[in-house]
Amino acid sequence: MENLFPEAIKKIGAVVGDDHILTRTNDREAHSRDTSMWHRVCAAVVYPGTAAEVARIVKIAAEYKIPIWTYSKGKNWGYGATMGYRDGALILILERMNRIIEVNEELAYAVIEPGVTQKQLDDYLKANNIKLWADCTDSTTEGSVIGNALERGFGYTPYWDHFGHLCGLEVVLANGEFVRTGGGAENSLTWHTHKWGSGPYIEGLFSQSNFGIVTKAGIWLLPEPESFNSFTCEIKDERDLPAVIDTIRRLALDDVLESNVHMINDVMFMAQMIQYPYDLLDGKTYLSEDTRAALRKKLKIRPWTVTGGIYGTRSQVRACRHIVKSGLSGYGRLSFLDDRMFGVMKALLKFWKKHQNNSLLSSVLRWATGGSLEKLEVIPHIYPIFKGTPGEFIVGFAYFKSRGPRPRTNVDPARDGAGLIWLAVISPLTGRHTGELEKICKPIFYKHGFDWSCTFVMVSPRSAVGLIEIFYEKANADEASRAQALYNELAEKTVAAGFQQYRTSIAFGDRILNGAPEFQRLMNTMKASIDPDNIIAPGRYGIGLPEQQV
Amino acid sequence: MENLFPEAIKKIGAVVGDDHILTRTNDREAHSRDTSMWHRVCAAVVYPGTAAEVARIVKIAAEYKIPIWTYSKGKNWGYGATMGYRDGALILILERMNRIIEVNEELAYAVIEPGVTQKQLDDYLKANNIKLWADCTDSTTEGSVIGNALERGFGYTPYWDHFGHLCGLEVVLANGEFVRTGGGAENSLTWHTHKWGSGPYIEGLFSQSNFGIVTKAGIWLLPEPESFNSFTCEIKDERDLPAVIDTIRRLALDDVLESNVHMINDVMFMAQMIQYPYDLLDGKTYLSEDTRAALRKKLKIRPWTVTGGIYGTRSQVRACRHIVKSGLSGYGRLSFLDDRMFGVMKALLKFWKKHQNNSLLSSVLRWATGGSLEKLEVIPHIYPIFKGTPGEFIVGFAYFKSRGPRPRTNVDPARDGAGLIWLAVISPLTGRHTGELEKICKPIFYKHGFDWSCTFVMVSPRSAVGLIEIFYEKANADEASRAQALYNELAEKTVAAGFQQYRTSIAFGDRILNGAPEFQRLMNTMKASIDPDNIIAPGRYGIGLPEQQV
Repeated sequence: MENLFPEAIKKIGAVVGDDHILTRTNDREAHSRDTSMWHRVCAAVVYPGTAAEVARIVKIAAEYKIPIWTYSKGKNWGYGATMGYRDGALILILERMNRIIEVNEELAYAVIEPGVTQKQLDDYLKANNIKLWADCTDSTTEGSVIGNALERGFGYTPYWDHFGHLCGLEVVLANGEFVRTGGGAENSLTWHTHKWGSGPYIEGLFSQSNFGIVTKAGIWLLPEPESFNSFTCEIKDERDLPAVIDTIRRLALDDVLESNVHMINDVMFMAQMIQYPYDLLDGKTYLSEDTRAALRKKLKIRPWTVTGGIYGTRSQVRACRHIVKSGLSGYGRLSFLDDRMFGVMKALLKFWKKHQNNSLLSSVLRWATGGSLEKLEVIPHIYPIFKGTPGEFIVGFAYFKSRGPRPRTNVDPARDGAGLIWLAVISPLTGRHTGELEKICKPIFYKHGFDWSCTFVMVSPRSAVGLIEIFYEKANADEASRAQALYNELAEKTVAAGFQQYRTSIAFGDRILNGAPEFQRLMNTMKASIDPDNIIAPGRYGIGLPEQQV
Repeated sequence: MENLFPEAIKKIGAVVGDDHILTRTNDREAHSRDTSMWHRVCAAVVYPGTAAEVARIVKIAAEYKIPIWTYSKGKNWGYGATMGYRDGALILILERMNRIIEVNEELAYAVIEPGVTQKQLDDYLKANNIKLWADCTDSTTEGSVIGNALERGFGYTPYWDHFGHLCGLEVVLANGEFVRTGGGAENSLTWHTHKWGSGPYIEGLFSQSNFGIVTKAGIWLLPEPESFNSFTCEIKDERDLPAVIDTIRRLALDDVLESNVHMINDVMFMAQMIQYPYDLLDGKTYLSEDTRAALRKKLKIRPWTVTGGIYGTRSQVRACRHIVKSGLSGYGRLSFLDDRMFGVMKALLKFWKKHQNNSLLSSVLRWATGGSLEKLEVIPHIYPIFKGTPGEFIVGFAYFKSRGPRPRTNVDPARDGAGLIWLAVISPLTGRHTGELEKICKPIFYKHGFDWSCTFVMVSPRSAVGLIEIFYEKANADEASRAQALYNELAEKTVAAGFQQYRTSIAFGDRILNGAPEFQRLMNTMKASIDPDNIIAPGRYGIGLPEQQV
């Protein structure tokens, strides 16, 4: 097989044009970069320009039995970026397929290709004065809308559930055939408006898996609401977090909170404000409780910060705001922000930055605003995300432990050698369960010499994702090896305690179904029936690997 | 094979007990009854008591290559009830598997078996003083919660989408193996709280299809809201319906209307109030425009009646009510009902019924309420459904054209020979599209000599189901044959115009995927891989049949 590879590459080059296939060591190496320490070197990188080209490539790959791994843009930093599970894969990057095919204002959806980025879609809507918002993540502006949705990523608006808001997919199968989901004919009027279609609903098969390559998708857009408020509650006492989470569940179940709520701990918040205070380590590899407390005081932050959005008509927002207030204000400072206050805040921030060397003025402003300059500086970057406008500031937290500077533009932590790994697990949305998760993870962080960093994101009235961030100094071999050990122990212990992975990395993907051998067997059987040579991303999310018995 | 059948039946009898298998002609005939004119006679009817028994039966069926058709309760009247697509099937009815396994109040879900009925679940919640509502349909109290959800049925509350509110299924496959959806281990804490699970989401495969037999499911329940209002808008001029539909779309997209909205035409409303006025036919087989108008006047109804619910906190309901008012009140009489007013109404109704022979009093009441006694009588039966309490009055409309009396209890239109067929198609939620659908269907009704009866149900801010009711006199051979011809022409013409079927009958199921040969091929390949002998419901929703080229 090995010696047939150049022949296959030649054929693929004939499909996409030689400019769109990379085989040189440097280029292959550049596609083996992530903020994690995992490293898989691909055999070539291909950039098809159309869905028809994708279909032809898949057929060639099947002919030569070369596994292909598809990424829309490949910005899933901390999970493995554009790497396959094994060396030697053919990496397909769909970024050239970036047409916005349709925006239907009346029915509030878009039809796009996988290369369309968050920024591109947002820019398009704004440039055409279309009063619809595309929910976006707080990660890079250059991430793919479809890629993120298929990985089941989330944003901040009521349309936070990106997979849940896809409707109507075009998929290339391993045999090169095209399939439209939904069971309708080509003239179907509701391919992008009715989720379940006629007959079985199969779109879920193409998320977190390897059953096909999505080349086009409908995505529902949020009509610009009449009114919007973000809210922030700064939890004074970390022992209150379980009670706060229970309150949030009740508000969500009662449909007061319709968008998701992010709860970040102090370390995660610090990572958004500053770079790592190595000078405060005092000989250890992570910050002591006292140092952390002192830093919180300096930055004017609390052990946990809870933030969410309220969307609706003016009267709805007013009603919800009132209920949120009575639910959360007992746990710490609660503040709301709307467009008007946001304008005031930006002006204040500009003034403060200009006069930041005036210590008296700074003191007065710290007192008056209840915040630090560093904290206030984050807000102008997070507020637009609540309204569907992506930015690249927030994801700069990935540079937390980098010794080099954190860029404000052209942010690319993988390229810049920043160290971050994600472990994302699902918990029932109760304080009891999230508390238990914290109790499992925190000691493992300290055991391996790391700062405990965590975000809980409400992803339905019944579930939260525990987004566990491992910040490490990538250039430091000891840290990298400890980070790897920490990841492995966390992954094992959380799964053993019943916390399923919400989304997984290339380092755990082939083990993710270990606890569900019947599920894996069913997936393998179906996979073998439509991809008998196991060409598309073999082993991804455990599919196309022999199942394990538990 | 034929002669091996008794042997198979004997083996199955040994599994379930001879009391739970029916093979006599009468019993088989009783399971070939529907309100439609379709008739498929099964080979036997089996009532397994446990999921393990289901698994053993499936294995025996595979051994003898006998197709099995599973129904939870089989009350899908007008679509085919408990019939297979062909004669000679083994019918499995899961009604004995009726355990309510768990109700989790904190996380608002239940775990139930397929035999659990709408009434049983509602009774259980009420008896245990659990402040959660199970959304129910307006059909029989004896319908299965899971069966309806897998067919993608709907109710009235914000949890109207029954399939969308399933979470965590246990399924028996054709090889007799059990599979839990969600990709988690048995100790997973979030099987019933996190919809997508880890890895691919596969629950959609088991709805409107034949990939397995669901033997257990989690279902999300609605926490009793602080406040509830139903609203009714009586559309004066039928030409306004498109504008009303556009208004409803905007209210739904703006998240003012979160539950679905039902829009019924005059004939459908009459069917809920009275039995067919054969005496007004005037030699025709359907009512003339003038007669219909006169009937509307007599019954005090309008060409279209729009109804929906508003759920939330007191302040939310107040805010929404105000917005609904300004959106809809221009189109006709708009009224709201809450628990207090509902109590008043019931008392008034009781008084009126007692004095219905007093014509002066009746006139005053007609004037004061803006309604007829017949119309008011419907309300006490519909209002509880908005709050998750099923009843059997409404489905009595199926007796509209029956010559015999319409029962008020123990309603079973299939048993009683009532004539009703459903054709349910999906339309984009725009007045333009629903108008086009009406324009296609109405003349076909008249051509075949039937009254045009239609309900539009908003099933998302972007789609409506056009529920087209064919009421016919079943005992009348001419009507039955015209009804069949009407159904066929409607099914063909609507699909040809791009209106996919939302849910289908045994008469169209094997054609439903005709327009999507690639989709059907993919489904067939997967089906063959996990059910190589095509044992489970072969051909259901077009799966397990050779695909057609269009």
